Formats: sequence, C-alpha cells, structure tokens
Amino acid sequence: MQTQGQVRSANLAAVLARLRDDGPRSRARLAADTGLTKATVSSLVGELVDRGLVADGALHRPGSVGRPGTLVELGGRGVCGVGVEVNVDYLAVLVLDLRGEVRAERRLALDVAGSPAGQVLDAVTTLVRAVLADVDATPVGLTVAVPGSVQGTVVATAPNLPGWPGLDVAAGLAGTGLPVTVANDADLSALAEWSAGPHARTPDLVYLTGEVGVGGGVVSGGRLLRGSTGLGGEVGHLALTPGDAPCGCGRRGCWETVVGLGALLRAAADPGDPLCDPGRDLEDRLAEVVARARAGDARTLAALTDIGTGLGVGAAVLVSLLDPAVVVLGGYFAVVGEFLLDPLTSALAARVEGPRRVVLSTLGFTAAVRGGAHVALQPVFHDPTTVPLEASA
Amino acid sequence: MQTQGQVRSANLAAVLARLRDDGPRSRARLAADTGLTKATVSSLVGELVDRGLVADGALHRPGSVGRPGTLVELGGRGVCGVGVEVNVDYLAVLVLDLRGEVRAERRLALDVAGSPAGQVLDAVTTLVRAVLADVDATPVGLTVAVPGSVQGTVVATAPNLPGWPGLDVAAGLAGTGLPVTVANDADLSALAEWSAGPHARTPDLVYLTGEVGVGGGVVSGGRLLRGSTGLGGEVGHLALTPGDAPCGCGRRGCWETVVGLGALLRAAADPGDPLCDPGRDLEDRLAEVVARARAGDARTLAALTDIGTGLGVGAAVLVSLLDPAVVVLGGYFAVVGEFLLDPLTSALAARVEGPRRVVLSTLGFTAAVRGGAHVALQPVFHDPTTVPLEASA
Repeated sequence: MQTQGQVRSANLAAVLARLRDDGPRSRARLAADTGLTKATVSSLVGELVDRGLVADGALHRPGSVGRPGTLVELGGRGVCGVGVEVNVDYLAVLVLDLRGEVRAERRLALDVAGSPAGQVLDAVTTLVRAVLADVDATPVGLTVAVPGSVQGTVVATAPNLPGWPGLDVAAGLAGTGLPVTVANDADLSALAEWSAGPHARTPDLVYLTGEVGVGGGVVSGGRLLRGSTGLGGEVGHLALTPGDAPCGCGRRGCWETVVGLGALLRAAADPGDPLCDPGRDLEDRLAEVVARARAGDARTLAALTDIGTGLGVGAAVLVSLLDPAVVVLGGYFAVVGEFLLDPLTSALAARVEGPRRVVLSTLGFTAAVRGGAHVALQPVFHDPTTVPLEASA
Repeated sequence: MQTQGQVRSANLAAVLARLRDDGPRSRARLAADTGLTKATVSSLVGELVDRGLVADGALHRPGSVGRPGTLVELGGRGVCGVGVEVNVDYLAVLVLDLRGEVRAERRLALDVAGSPAGQVLDAVTTLVRAVLADVDATPVGLTVAVPGSVQGTVVATAPNLPGWPGLDVAAGLAGTGLPVTVANDADLSALAEWSAGPHARTPDLVYLTGEVGVGGGVVSGGRLLRGSTGLGGEVGHLALTPGDAPCGCGRRGCWETVVGLGALLRAAADPGDPLCDPGRDLEDRLAEVVARARAGDARTLAALTDIGTGLGVGAAVLVSLLDPAVVVLGGYFAVVGEFLLDPLTSALAARVEGPRRVVLSTLGFTAAVRGGAHVALQPVFHDPTTVPLEASA
C-alpha cells in the first residue's frame, strides 16, 4: 500500500513523463491522459512549477467557446544535469536542461593519462564549478564518463588510464556538492543516442565508437545492457578474428587491433607520415585522412575499406546476437564513415539475414557527455520531489 | 489514478508475488511485508483462496502467547500452465502448477519435420487434452516452444521445420480452448533455468543448447533479450570462425557447423558407424558417445575436446559482450558435458579476463517445456483476477 506522499510523488512523475514523452499540452488534456481529476492535475502542475520543472507556455484555445488556457510544458530551465567526460587527453563538460537543451559545453585539453588522478579530479571540480557559474539553473546531479568499466562509483578497469582502477570518482568530486554517478563512456554514448535525435527511444540499439580503443554500448529492450559485473556491451576485446596483432590488453587478435584508430593509421601511412604524429590533434589527422580519401588516394581508400570490412565482420556477430533495430557508429568511425559504410554493409550482408540499418552518429565527440547529463537528470523524472521547492527562485 | 479495482488487483498480485518469492508466511507477516492492514490482507488471502491460488498450510505459533495461526502458501494446485515443445522428431508436454511442481509430463515420438503442420497441431491438441484430463487443476494458458524464431504467434523462421514459417500456431491450437503464446525453444529453456533450480533469478544468464542446431537464450537484467525482431539471443549462425563447413542456412562457417551435433558425430565416427545412424534414438547414440569416451577411446575424446574448444571460442564472445554471471549448457552439451568443460574453460580463459562460471543444465531435454509452462502461468501473477473464482471448485 502506498502512502499518500508516495501516491502524490508518483502522480507528479506521471505528469512530468507525459510532458517529456508527448510534448506540451493543456491541463485538461493531462487530466484525460492520466485519469486524474482536473483539480488534481492543476495542483500537481502548480507544484511542478514551484519546483522549477514545468512552465506555462503558449495560449491554447481548444474550441470556439470557453476561455483559452495555456499549454503546460517542461519548464526545465529551473534544473539541469551535468555530464563530464574524462578521457586520455581531455576533459569535457556538457550541461542539459530538462528539455534536453544544451545550456553549456566546454572542452579542456589535459594530459589525463600522464597526471595524478587526484589532480585530474580537482581539475574536473574546478571546470564544473566554472561552467555552472554561467548557467542559470540548479544542477541536480553529475555523471562522469570514463573510458573503462565501473563498479558503483569506482573505476574497475581502464586500459588507457593506468592510475584510475580502484579510484572512487564520486569521492574525488565531493567538492562539486552534487550527487555523482560514474559510467562507461560508450554506455553513456549509447544512452545519448537513445535519449534524443533520430534514433530516440529505439528500444534495441547498438552504439560502436572508435578512438584509440573501440567501445560499445548496447540498449536492449529500452535499457542499457550492463551484465553481471558492469562489463556488458564491451566490444573492443572481442576475440572475433584469428588475427595475431598484439593488443594493449596483452592478448592477440582483439577486435580493436583490427578496427581501432591504430589499425587505420598503420595501414594508411608510414611511421614518418604526419598522420602518425601523436603530437598532432586527432581531429586534424582525421580530417587529413578524409581529404586524402576524397582525393582518391589508393592507400588511404584501401585502409578505410579494410576497417569497414572489419567492422562488418564484428557487427555481424553483434547483430545476430542482439538483433538491434539500428547500429550507430560514433567516434572516429563517424568522421570517416562515408568510406566505411559500403564495405561494412557488404560484410554484414554476407553474414546476417535481412536488411540492417547502420548509421553514423551526428553527436560528434559529445555523445558521452550528453549521455552523462541525461543520466544525471533521470532522478528528477523518477521523483520530482527530489528537487526542492526553492529551485525556481 | 488507479481505480479501486486496479488497486485491489495490484494488491492481490503483491501478496501472490510475496508468497512465490519468499515462501509461506502468516497473514500478520504478509501485512508487515506489504504495508497493508491485517484486515485487508485477510480479505485478499480469502479471495486468493477462492480463486484457487493460495491455501492455508502448516500451523504457526509466532510466540509463547496468543492463538496459533496458519501459514499461507501458494496453493497452486488450483491452476496450472502448460508447456508444449514441437521439435523435429517429437512433441513434448509438461504441466506446472503455481508452486512450480510438475503435475504431468509426456513425450511423443512424431515425424514433425515430415508431416503437414496442420496434422502436427491436431496431434498437439489431442495430446494436450489427454494430458490435462489427468490433471486436477485448471489450465490458464499454453506456451509452445518451436525451434525457430517467432513474431507474435506466427513462426518466422525454422530451418529444421520447413513447413512452419508463416504458420500461426495459436490459431492452429484454438481447439485447446486455452490462450496460446509461442516462443523460441532456447529462449524458453533460458527462462526455465532462470525460473527455478540452482540458478533461479540470476539476472544475467546465458543458456546454450546443442541439438541438430545450436540455440541460445539470453537473460539480461532479469529479462529475456528479445531484440528488435525477436531474433535476439540467436547463436547457431554466429559467424565466429573463418571455417568453411557448409551450414544448413546456406552460409559457411556458422558456429553450429563447429559445435552442433553433426560436427560431433562426424568427428567421432565414420559414416558406417552406428553412432551416425539417424534411425537410432538420439539419447542412445549420446549414451554410446559417453561410454566410448569413458572407456578412453581416443577418437571420441578428441572429438569432444574439439567441441569443447569450439564452445569456449564462442562462449568467449558471448561472455565478453553479455557479461553473464553463469553460462548454462543444455541439450546434448549437458549429456556429454563432463568431457567438454575442461577444453571449454581453457579456451574461455585464454580470451576473457576473470573467473567465469560454466555449468551443465540439470533439466535434461525438458527445459523448453518447463520454460513454456512457466511463461503460461505468468498472467496469473500479473493479475490474479484473471483466474475465475470457480477455479477452486
């Protein structure tokens, strides 16, 4: 049996979810949608307004008679969620409001892999405070994306951040004063694709991202596939091929030795080529790969074709097993995607029945922070009473 | 806002779920567990008794004073669920009551692959009626396991039952008078492992079964992984190996060409060997494989080692991607399992970090029908009022 407080909080959540999923509507329509009385809906909307979660929007005249009402919409400018990404050589922050609008975004080059983790977390705290100082909304939470696996708020594995396993990221960010959650970057990117944009709410979606490593996030039945120890959806070290290229993990033939950024650069250029200069910005180097391919450079095209085929071989296994409605390619795969899709699709078609949608992410390298900010906002939708009444003040 | 009827039906479901998950208990304990008043619990239990779903059990004296009460338990002998398996050369039926006890079980040899589908469905109807005639409980539903993929109640693909794709199995079983659901056999087997026995309620579990084909069922986060078109968890045709053995699906190198029953028999015996006689009962042939292996026959042991290694190579991909707490081997894998586990574990350990549990199913070839009967019972737990009051009469 629910207490009255629980019932009210569930009804507040129901109204908020309706506005999120179906858009602005009148109080009368909300009453019809939820089965609540108009008086109850008015009271609930009033409370949500006081908590800074919804606002009265456009005037709305349902018919030719009666006085016009206003449409209620996710106000959202009252509260915001913060996504942070910690990666090998940068930090990124993105702030989303309840409507899914980006309220702030910042990226900071930092030698994360080469710095003490405590120092990095202090830099995150400073960066988050600075970004939030310019945002006119109350932050309700912070989610940190890390390139590794996570148990609770502790990093479990992070092949490219040697000092991070065992670190409690939430404890290190206590100075932000925000509730902190921590998750794998590719999982958060998958949630970003799922939460907004052309594939929003696709219940079965696979996200693959290529950087130094290869990451994956799987949304299955509308939920992130986490697995028994939080390692679900990991794809970089799938032993798909009998290849014997050594992998950073110590084994040989992992998928990322075939389709990771290193494989592309090795195949596309000799060691002295500026493409292989680790001191150059990655986006510049990828732009040059694209330029060479567009100019018809045979070696570049062959290298991209091999990556595409390798992606298709692995994607065939993922598609057979997980049966997603769409496979989204992010990270560097999206940047050079125009040259990957044909060989990828051919390799996939040779191994899996039926049509399969493979698309390029349009979120660029912000997918993980967007997913993080989305996750940080979710407690508000589960229980709007977690946001204090004064948030709108 | 819920109507009073919805609230009552949710409360009935809550009491029933408590008895299922936590076992027999007093009305007072149920009141404490659910937050409902004792009077409400007494009324709810009374209704559940009238619907044949719970019963008063053992006497229970909570302390040294006060009058003794009785423990309430899933009565369950009032209603039952029916699982049917349609396979290449047999039909099977199993009836479970609400307590998970097997109330009836029957297996019938039938050349399903060689018979018109309508005739097979008539045989199913006759078999189900005959089995239920001996069961003193009201059937609430029937779930049919098929060796293929399913859309709604229509068979989508069934490589080993050529006449079945496109067939509406529920329509063909209207004569049973029961609500009919249809599902993939390996998915139902996975649910059987999940619903009872040593791995009950393991939220992340992978079930692999070997017969002529190789099937898989994945429970992820406590739910069956279905995918966007119902093909999720299919493993037989994973393109894991660059092998080129032709597969029944028309492609080459599918996993079932490496670890299916055909691969074992080809490797273990020459064509003239009685092991390869398709007219012999499969269980006899498998018993002979085990006998030869136990006697130390080198060829048989080598064949089993190869199957185990091939299973480990594929299991490594499944484990990396899905991160299950346990992998359960069913079908013929369980029968010859004592010879598969060592090579399987070695192949897995070479490809995946950390300890991984791989166990043999103890359900034998009844896993699919058990899972089906379990599924057929679920509507009762969701809404106990679907069972008419006269069910207990």
